[in-house]
Amino acid sequence: MEPKAFFVSLFEAAVAAADPEKTIRRFLPKRPKGRTIVIGAGKGSAQMARALEQAWEGPLEGVVVTRYGYGTPCERIEIIEAAHPVPDEAGLSASRRLFDAVKGLTADDLVVALISGGGSALLPAPPEGMALADEIAVNEALLASGAPISAMNTIRKHLSTIKGGRLALAAHPAKVVSLVVSDIPGDNPAYVASGPTVPDAGSRTDALEIVRNYGLRLPEAALRHLETEEAAAPLPGDPRFAGNEVHVIASAAVSLEAAAAEAKRQGIAAVILSDAIEGEAREVAGVHAAIAREVAMRDRPFAKPVLLLSGGETTVTIRGKGGRGGRNSEFLLAFANAIEGVEGIHGFAADTDGIDGSQDNAGAFADFATAARMRAAGIDPKAALARNDAWTAFDAIGDLFVPGPTGTNVNDLRAILVR
Amino acid sequence: MEPKAFFVSLFEAAVAAADPEKTIRRFLPKRPKGRTIVIGAGKGSAQMARALEQAWEGPLEGVVVTRYGYGTPCERIEIIEAAHPVPDEAGLSASRRLFDAVKGLTADDLVVALISGGGSALLPAPPEGMALADEIAVNEALLASGAPISAMNTIRKHLSTIKGGRLALAAHPAKVVSLVVSDIPGDNPAYVASGPTVPDAGSRTDALEIVRNYGLRLPEAALRHLETEEAAAPLPGDPRFAGNEVHVIASAAVSLEAAAAEAKRQGIAAVILSDAIEGEAREVAGVHAAIAREVAMRDRPFAKPVLLLSGGETTVTIRGKGGRGGRNSEFLLAFANAIEGVEGIHGFAADTDGIDGSQDNAGAFADFATAARMRAAGIDPKAALARNDAWTAFDAIGDLFVPGPTGTNVNDLRAILVR
Repeated sequence: MEPKAFFVSLFEAAVAAADPEKTIRRFLPKRPKGRTIVIGAGKGSAQMARALEQAWEGPLEGVVVTRYGYGTPCERIEIIEAAHPVPDEAGLSASRRLFDAVKGLTADDLVVALISGGGSALLPAPPEGMALADEIAVNEALLASGAPISAMNTIRKHLSTIKGGRLALAAHPAKVVSLVVSDIPGDNPAYVASGPTVPDAGSRTDALEIVRNYGLRLPEAALRHLETEEAAAPLPGDPRFAGNEVHVIASAAVSLEAAAAEAKRQGIAAVILSDAIEGEAREVAGVHAAIAREVAMRDRPFAKPVLLLSGGETTVTIRGKGGRGGRNSEFLLAFANAIEGVEGIHGFAADTDGIDGSQDNAGAFADFATAARMRAAGIDPKAALARNDAWTAFDAIGDLFVPGPTGTNVNDLRAILVR
Repeated sequence: MEPKAFFVSLFEAAVAAADPEKTIRRFLPKRPKGRTIVIGAGKGSAQMARALEQAWEGPLEGVVVTRYGYGTPCERIEIIEAAHPVPDEAGLSASRRLFDAVKGLTADDLVVALISGGGSALLPAPPEGMALADEIAVNEALLASGAPISAMNTIRKHLSTIKGGRLALAAHPAKVVSLVVSDIPGDNPAYVASGPTVPDAGSRTDALEIVRNYGLRLPEAALRHLETEEAAAPLPGDPRFAGNEVHVIASAAVSLEAAAAEAKRQGIAAVILSDAIEGEAREVAGVHAAIAREVAMRDRPFAKPVLLLSGGETTVTIRGKGGRGGRNSEFLLAFANAIEGVEGIHGFAADTDGIDGSQDNAGAFADFATAARMRAAGIDPKAALARNDAWTAFDAIGDLFVPGPTGTNVNDLRAILVR
């Protein structure tokens, strides 16, 4: 098995698993007796709408909101655009359009909800007494608080007429099938886009406790609403949701699982360390390298041969001037330096959207001899890392990975083979 | 099982495994027919000498070199001190003393070599034609090159009359038993103190290739010696070493294994991620947290309940002013922030020497509710991390770990329990 070809096959498997055109067919609901209404919100929802249109046999209509510039022409589903990450009036109008679309349905009708990351901002729907500005202020307070997403979600759904399953409630008694592209660690569909069609369990009391614990500074109107809210958010066990379905059709985890399955198909055991590793690329690389070395030297915590996979999105703090390369190239250069000379270790890192930063590559390939090859090519790999010039270093030895844009994005794919 | 008491028991097991007084007894060689000579070099070697004296039944004599200020009174073994990390004349003299000690031995005699980190600088022994200043210049060039320790070791042993097993060769035909406290990832005893009693496989040709590959700027005398060296370093398979033994009696890995064994004794499966994780403490914490969350949420890459262990030494870049706390406290505060709300995750980090930075604690305890408890105590855990004030934050909630100095040091112990 040739490591480069192996890594490319993993990347292709990960990208295919994140492509709605390919994955949506596996999750198509049964054609209903009545009408089929499509609704949706999120950065990827227009692309999902087109994929659904192409795959769906039978009549279909609906409306989906995405971010300005993210629209994709559809034939039967109307695509509208609104502001993200700070909501605007177009979003308010989009929320109303989605409610209108599911109004007056019967138990014979089907609603397909296409939900993806960013949908929360695209569907502002402040309750009576709160203005759009209040909803924006709530969101700013949440983002500044450092509260975990579960806590933010609890607050948001109690200050909205659409989030936390309320849109699904409006569609009752129609069956609602939610197809979700997750950008959330853990892939809890109730947290993606604040779950307009998926209730979760937080209560109004929980919400008030979160406000206290995180010292949230909410607008007066928002606080008043939280304290007096009459129409409680629906609960997960609500019988009106009994016939509904929720499927996560793409996510970082789904893509990592696809890469792991491809590795296993080729006879290499694979483990997923995490789908949500964040942090400074070179530091994250150091930890990956330490684990890879432990495997190489001592066959633990996993026995060789093994593929270590991780996802998530690292960051790069620019230190040098004039350096070229994105976070995956930088990760891999730091990794190459850290595993130099440890035979049997091979690494790969790439952005699943096909473009790593500002260059044309998605990532690069590395192994225990990468640093030596760079030196032979006249590049000092440690100095290149110091000036954030990973692209140049990998380009010099012909180890860039340049697949071109993939049209999908489930963050980074990092793969380390130890054999 | 109470997590705090559990973590303390792991710490105690790790520290006990690193204490020569406790471990050396398990590796004592058989008393020889002839004389017993003790030699040694390294920062921990005086402490090892005292432990050996106390445990040894029978006559014994010898000489051991350690760093200035690291001497420990011994009754029968002479302790001499020399300079580290830059060698001095006292080190030159120490090298001669060690050679004298093993001169003229017979096959009935036993040499016990007590080797620990730092021994390379403490035993300068330039070959004819090279001065001490040349050996110092060689070492500076190596450290600046970024070459891996295996490459540095190959160069050093070809520019020395003592390293790379040459001291053991001088002791032939006596049996040489090397007891090694390792400070090296992977614990290859040939690399600890450049292996004066343990040969490894690099040849003179390898050494010259390393000089070329890393563009090493060696002194003229050193280059000349490498190109013309007549007395080749001994090889691992040399029959004159056939009766010798080498035991790593303490290391980060040995301590992690002791902690893992203690966890298993208490019914918790344990995995060792790496004994040598370095990097910025908060970033290393982020990766540990991501893996812990993956375990908590998806039972992978390990099934719950499980203990994740790692060693090595992180670093802290000071960002704030007036903050208190060492690298383990900082690691744990970043970890606590990253796992907030994920029930079932508990963390511990401590310096095995008992002192984490400039405060009196070795480390601290954390869990999924630590950040909330800090807020309840009036401390913003994210702001505390931003100003490097982890000690204050853990002190406010009574979660510091303060065992006092332990007298041992195998770097950090990080333990994460997910159940």
